[in-house]
Amino acid sequence: MTPPSLPITPALEAQLRGWLAEDIGRGDLTAAALVGRTAQAHWLAKAPGVLCGGPLAVALFRLLDPQLEARLLVADGEPLEAGQRLLELSGDGAALVAAERTALNLVMRLSGIATATAALVASLEGSGVRLADTRKTTPGLRVLEKYAARCGGGVNHRLGLDDAAMLKENHLAWSGGVAAAVAAVRAGAPWPARLIVEAESEAEAVAAVRAGADAVLLDEFSPEALTALVPRLRVLARERAAGGGAADLMLEASGVAPDQLAAYAASGIDLISTSAAHTRSAWLDLSMRFAPLLA
Amino acid sequence: MTPPSLPITPALEAQLRGWLAEDIGRGDLTAAALVGRTAQAHWLAKAPGVLCGGPLAVALFRLLDPQLEARLLVADGEPLEAGQRLLELSGDGAALVAAERTALNLVMRLSGIATATAALVASLEGSGVRLADTRKTTPGLRVLEKYAARCGGGVNHRLGLDDAAMLKENHLAWSGGVAAAVAAVRAGAPWPARLIVEAESEAEAVAAVRAGADAVLLDEFSPEALTALVPRLRVLARERAAGGGAADLMLEASGVAPDQLAAYAASGIDLISTSAAHTRSAWLDLSMRFAPLLA
Amino acid sequence: MTPPSLPITPALEAQLRGWLAEDIGRGDLTAAALVGRTAQAHWLAKAPGVLCGGPLAVALFRLLDPQLEARLLVADGEPLEAGQRLLELSGDGAALVAAERTALNLVMRLSGIATATAALVASLEGSGVRLADTRKTTPGLRVLEKYAARCGGGVNHRLGLDDAAMLKENHLAWSGGVAAAVAAVRAGAPWPARLIVEAESEAEAVAAVRAGADAVLLDEFSPEALTALVPRLRVLARERAAGGGAADLMLEASGVAPDQLAAYAASGIDLISTSAAHTRSAWLDLSMRFAPLLA
Amino acid sequence: MTPPSLPITPALEAQLRGWLAEDIGRGDLTAAALVGRTAQAHWLAKAPGVLCGGPLAVALFRLLDPQLEARLLVADGEPLEAGQRLLELSGDGAALVAAERTALNLVMRLSGIATATAALVASLEGSGVRLADTRKTTPGLRVLEKYAARCGGGVNHRLGLDDAAMLKENHLAWSGGVAAAVAAVRAGAPWPARLIVEAESEAEAVAAVRAGADAVLLDEFSPEALTALVPRLRVLARERAAGGGAADLMLEASGVAPDQLAAYAASGIDLISTSAAHTRSAWLDLSMRFAPLLA
Amino acid sequence: MTPPSLPITPALEAQLRGWLAEDIGRGDLTAAALVGRTAQAHWLAKAPGVLCGGPLAVALFRLLDPQLEARLLVADGEPLEAGQRLLELSGDGAALVAAERTALNLVMRLSGIATATAALVASLEGSGVRLADTRKTTPGLRVLEKYAARCGGGVNHRLGLDDAAMLKENHLAWSGGVAAAVAAVRAGAPWPARLIVEAESEAEAVAAVRAGADAVLLDEFSPEALTALVPRLRVLARERAAGGGAADLMLEASGVAPDQLAAYAASGIDLISTSAAHTRSAWLDLSMRFAPLLA
Amino acid sequence: MTPPSLPITPALEAQLRGWLAEDIGRGDLTAAALVGRTAQAHWLAKAPGVLCGGPLAVALFRLLDPQLEARLLVADGEPLEAGQRLLELSGDGAALVAAERTALNLVMRLSGIATATAALVASLEGSGVRLADTRKTTPGLRVLEKYAARCGGGVNHRLGLDDAAMLKENHLAWSGGVAAAVAAVRAGAPWPARLIVEAESEAEAVAAVRAGADAVLLDEFSPEALTALVPRLRVLARERAAGGGAADLMLEASGVAPDQLAAYAASGIDLISTSAAHTRSAWLDLSMRFAPLLA
Repeated sequence: MTPPSLPITPALEAQLRGWLAEDIGRGDLTAAALVGRTAQAHWLAKAPGVLCGGPLAVALFRLLDPQLEARLLVADGEPLEAGQRLLELSGDGAALVAAERTALNLVMRLSGIATATAALVASLEGSGVRLADTRKTTPGLRVLEKYAARCGGGVNHRLGLDDAAMLKENHLAWSGGVAAAVAAVRAGAPWPARLIVEAESEAEAVAAVRAGADAVLLDEFSPEALTALVPRLRVLARERAAGGGAADLMLEASGVAPDQLAAYAASGIDLISTSAAHTRSAWLDLSMRFAPLLA
Repeated sequence: MTPPSLPITPALEAQLRGWLAEDIGRGDLTAAALVGRTAQAHWLAKAPGVLCGGPLAVALFRLLDPQLEARLLVADGEPLEAGQRLLELSGDGAALVAAERTALNLVMRLSGIATATAALVASLEGSGVRLADTRKTTPGLRVLEKYAARCGGGVNHRLGLDDAAMLKENHLAWSGGVAAAVAAVRAGAPWPARLIVEAESEAEAVAAVRAGADAVLLDEFSPEALTALVPRLRVLARERAAGGGAADLMLEASGVAPDQLAAYAASGIDLISTSAAHTRSAWLDLSMRFAPLLA
Repeated sequence: MTPPSLPITPALEAQLRGWLAEDIGRGDLTAAALVGRTAQAHWLAKAPGVLCGGPLAVALFRLLDPQLEARLLVADGEPLEAGQRLLELSGDGAALVAAERTALNLVMRLSGIATATAALVASLEGSGVRLADTRKTTPGLRVLEKYAARCGGGVNHRLGLDDAAMLKENHLAWSGGVAAAVAAVRAGAPWPARLIVEAESEAEAVAAVRAGADAVLLDEFSPEALTALVPRLRVLARERAAGGGAADLMLEASGVAPDQLAAYAASGIDLISTSAAHTRSAWLDLSMRFAPLLA
Repeated sequence: MTPPSLPITPALEAQLRGWLAEDIGRGDLTAAALVGRTAQAHWLAKAPGVLCGGPLAVALFRLLDPQLEARLLVADGEPLEAGQRLLELSGDGAALVAAERTALNLVMRLSGIATATAALVASLEGSGVRLADTRKTTPGLRVLEKYAARCGGGVNHRLGLDDAAMLKENHLAWSGGVAAAVAAVRAGAPWPARLIVEAESEAEAVAAVRAGADAVLLDEFSPEALTALVPRLRVLARERAAGGGAADLMLEASGVAPDQLAAYAASGIDLISTSAAHTRSAWLDLSMRFAPLLA
Repeated sequence: MTPPSLPITPALEAQLRGWLAEDIGRGDLTAAALVGRTAQAHWLAKAPGVLCGGPLAVALFRLLDPQLEARLLVADGEPLEAGQRLLELSGDGAALVAAERTALNLVMRLSGIATATAALVASLEGSGVRLADTRKTTPGLRVLEKYAARCGGGVNHRLGLDDAAMLKENHLAWSGGVAAAVAAVRAGAPWPARLIVEAESEAEAVAAVRAGADAVLLDEFSPEALTALVPRLRVLARERAAGGGAADLMLEASGVAPDQLAAYAASGIDLISTSAAHTRSAWLDLSMRFAPLLA
Repeated sequence: MTPPSLPITPALEAQLRGWLAEDIGRGDLTAAALVGRTAQAHWLAKAPGVLCGGPLAVALFRLLDPQLEARLLVADGEPLEAGQRLLELSGDGAALVAAERTALNLVMRLSGIATATAALVASLEGSGVRLADTRKTTPGLRVLEKYAARCGGGVNHRLGLDDAAMLKENHLAWSGGVAAAVAAVRAGAPWPARLIVEAESEAEAVAAVRAGADAVLLDEFSPEALTALVPRLRVLARERAAGGGAADLMLEASGVAPDQLAAYAASGIDLISTSAAHTRSAWLDLSMRFAPLLA
């Protein structure tokens, strides 16, 4: 598989600059004595997990010391063992201590998500069902926390409100039913945008397929209910295609507890979406150690 | 006690605008059918906890609908029960759905921190020892995640690298020892800035007090070691004052597991700092429910 | 049909502020004498067309005079006749003259696109084939120029590089063929993202369908070639579905001259994409007229 | 003649970053497979014209790949033939495809303006009359579209509301006549700022000269009317100078159709201003071609 | 005379927001106890001077409290006596104290410039010679410090590098002499831009006029030298006009000590430019006083 | 002593970019003829003083010419003699002239502050009393003007509203007296933040110490009054400590005229704060000289 990639685009670089400014404020009071002295440091994992954000750490240090030498020993998406050294740095001492906390905070948070995602993905191994994230991400970190999910082996759900349409209960109620709502959204959305309908009952799911949904998000169904419902919806999709509508239908389950992933995976759905890795994971414990000063 | 306050300053408002833009991107594809229709909604707690960020949610919705009517039923820092209604909203339907996810993400994260902080603070009740946070906060959320700690009953440690100086192991090594390091930092720092020294051994702690530190952060000592060390350091501070130095000395413990808080509190220290509420807490589960459309 | 809507989001408002600043620079030298005087003005169409951007004009004037009274007489997407009055304004004279040029420039450009799009769409009337735009838009105006295409009756193609994937000749060559390229992109893209392949020959189109493309962009084929190719591709899609692949297939033509739209529409394709309305249209001629000053 | 120059100032670079972000959004989904592979490409003109924006294209690519090698074969302001190669690029494949559309959109728009301007300027050749642009430019592109006019051989009119004052009909009406308006504006404007008055009748033109205007913009006069009026205004200017006023007077015609330029040029005016090259020109057709991947 | 005006444009408002953020940082620690309490305050002049920036102060307070009531008792450009009350405020107590320092700093600096300018202008009274400022302004305050000069009765010189051209010694040397330099700059500059040449000797001044300069800045000449030179240059300008060149010529002196203004004014020049009011003035002493709290 | 240091952080670099844009605007009209020509220049002091901002000047020039060669001959905080050369530059001629004014303006202002501060500090030499600045700084220049005070040998007072709390008369009145006010602020402030109380009478000073203030700012007391009061307050602080409160107490005088510094220093206070160096100093006169062009 192609490993995840994360180009440091101008927009991302602007965020990195802002995060450094947030911690440094009007100047690092403690670093004053270190200006101009070259220092060496490395990062250690203090617990096992999956790395995410290594290139971001390097970019943060480089923003304060463009001449910094950095060597990433572990790629994003790869496993880390407790005690493993993952990054080596050499550069201006004041820059290293000024960016240290920001860099660690970012990579610890992202690696925590990647680690938790990898554990969830492992529960689905062999099932052919994919694990998707949600839009429950920390404000300001959407792109990076979605990237973390990919580093953990998950697949991203829509990235924002603008790359796919998702009709929920209130959209349907307000628009005069699912058929009208689907038509209204299709009319204004870009043609490549998929249209997903969230269903909380069998009747809603059936109506969504008939109305032409590309995907149905089946929320808080039991595994048994899904096992019965999924084949029925697939039949409806074939009937829909025969009538000139779309043939393909993606079925997604949500509201699934982590320990039930395998049970849901057996129901015939295509993917399971969960925010657990983003809303209930701990940061991965990483540490930065300095070598004695060179000069 | 004065409840925590959170003015929506221009700088904070700019962040809120950016977070909305992050989710909305090039436009909410699904909201198209809801433009111009007035909707009513409310927020529910799905689990017990401590609220943090209510005024931020209101501000986010108002950025998309300046005429929005909002009523906060619970103040920041107050407890929430599962099922409790905390916020009522009435305004443009498209604005409500476009800001929903961003507002929930922010308040769920902050309330998770406040809830976890409150639980830690409860362990210290009656001890007279305060619970402080750290600089381990999500990039971009420093001010708000520090506010969340206050909502949970904690006290903030320094806000950034510029409002207090903290000398760690590497600063000391690089500067020729603690006395030289303290002198160098004092010379350049604003006079009101406190100077804290992190000590990992008794010898370092003693040297820090002698060098004139305002506070010593005692990292990864056992409760027993602290019980022995603290009185000795207080004596040294009195001696220091007698010699013309500062008399006051704040003693802080770190590296304390949540279930050991009470044991550490009995050691005579002044405060305990921990990142647990920020790096190991789950988001508080909140939900937004829409009423049938009015028009 | 639901008319196009354009909420003035915080991100859009920031652009409007920037555009005013671009023209005003260090201050409007001529407006000095008009400060504090209430003025009335209206906008006239000097040529027939389709309006796009009315609410943007109002928002621009309001940024300089929050108390401005404005009345839009024509909605975006509606036709304008030469001489028709479309907007009435009353407010601070200095604000009206300072925002005049920026507002006119924006609405004239957008209405030019809407007008040209409407003419192209008219050529396809009754064919069931939709007219799509492209990513050839003026830097900085992507969202608005895409909105203008909708105002003219067109449908938007992807909005940027992040809401759908499109494999072009070079992607295919670099990735070891279409099957490998499709697999690589699918692995990293969000699951709702559609995957489009651009084909310049029958062989490429066939390979794209077999590799699982959701859509094929058929570039610079003749109408006759398309008429022969389209049914064959649809058969291949059914075979693909029978083998467990996706069943749906969108076929899109590009490289079509405006006077050939009807001929291409008869070939069985689903939509035609063209940049003509964005790269070869004139601005719609609009004018702002002032009434004598009131005070 | 000194060729036009376009330093990439910090302000311009910030715009370039924003335009890349506009297209890339949350990440280029298709480029994932190309990261780290070196690619070669070149740009071709598909139609004849005048180039404008070459250095901007290079700067855009370099923002995504600082190591990019670029060779501009044609300078801004020089003519292009159909089929001519104008730019050669070698660098990271993912960067080349991610910046491709933004760079082409910008250079195609600017070259379209330069090309149209050059055609208008050619109509005036030998007349000694200069062709000036206007403030009808695309929002956000003022500086660049003014530069494009220079690349086409035109001269810029004022750059914004702050570098010269221009009194129009409404200014005059509101200020109690041209003399009062001129006095009010002169009092507050920087001394180097020229003061232009727009006149729609002979009487207004005469009043403007008497009131001390540095220039009169004669709008929608016929060539014959101008031929009669111009000498009279020059006499008035000499009389004005004799009375202690300014002696110099610039006379400018506007509202001139492109096919009438020569006729107007013969009337004795100094320059003709027109927005035609900015509001009625097509983008110049350019294309980017990739060579087979190197690695 | 029309009093100076200062619209709070979006660009200026953005600066005001940034200046508040600079002082407030991560939050006003002292204001916590004042949130939600209405307070009344007023501003007093503690020394005589000329007010500049009153509307900026009001705008700053309103950014923190949109409901603030403010009454300006003195207009910008008007004189202040020691002890005079100039502004009355009523609003949220926390907002008043949080914006107090920023607002005072800005208005004290600007009023210091206005006051110093007024004193210099008074030296020229009756001479018909105007006093101009320079580009020596505090970084970030160009527009406002130029406005302050107008409030003091001065006239602005060019506002930046883009609204007029000024050839200095080095430009001339590098371009092959004044004639070549003038020609090169004229070719690329907007037609309304004036071209000024700085001359440090009689020969340079003569060459500048012959080369077609609109103005000559005569730097560090004695009053006697100017008295002899000015008529000669005016004659040259008339000869230039007779030869088809520009007739008007503005003559400006610089390098003039404040106590020599009257002597220079008698030399026949048109204006004197000086940075003294911006680089050698004290801030005007203003103070904010609070009334006892209402609630 | 460690010399002051000033890392060019991302936040500071963003300000430098903005200041260049402020002067350059839409482009340097005069520099056109100099593009691509290498030039050499140096900076001279025209008056004696203390340098502040040398690295900022270099950074400004480098933003326009990344290849610029610069050599600083004098470090920040060091004395300058009239006529002394302090900076040598070699780079693109157009970049040098475009950044010249901005760089000089910044360094002249900052060096003026450093020079004035050094003179005040000299008055205190040998007294053991330190000279502190205030929050009276030019909007936008807080960090740099505080740095200038350090370059002159002063110590910084608090940097903003968020790094220390200072209770003034109105805070005290509004909060129900000094004890209540101190308690309210302590409860919400970070624990390292010092709490200062401003006192205008002996009674207020006494109350402040009793309430637990870390420091008392004694405003507009006479030297004699201070000489009597200071020992009394120190006694109170010892009593406070005996009762379990803080032992340390910093005593600061304000409202001191420059010629009275020595008299106040003898009163037993710890430091004197004054805004004189920021609000009543002239810019240090510096000049940039160009060598003849090389190419």
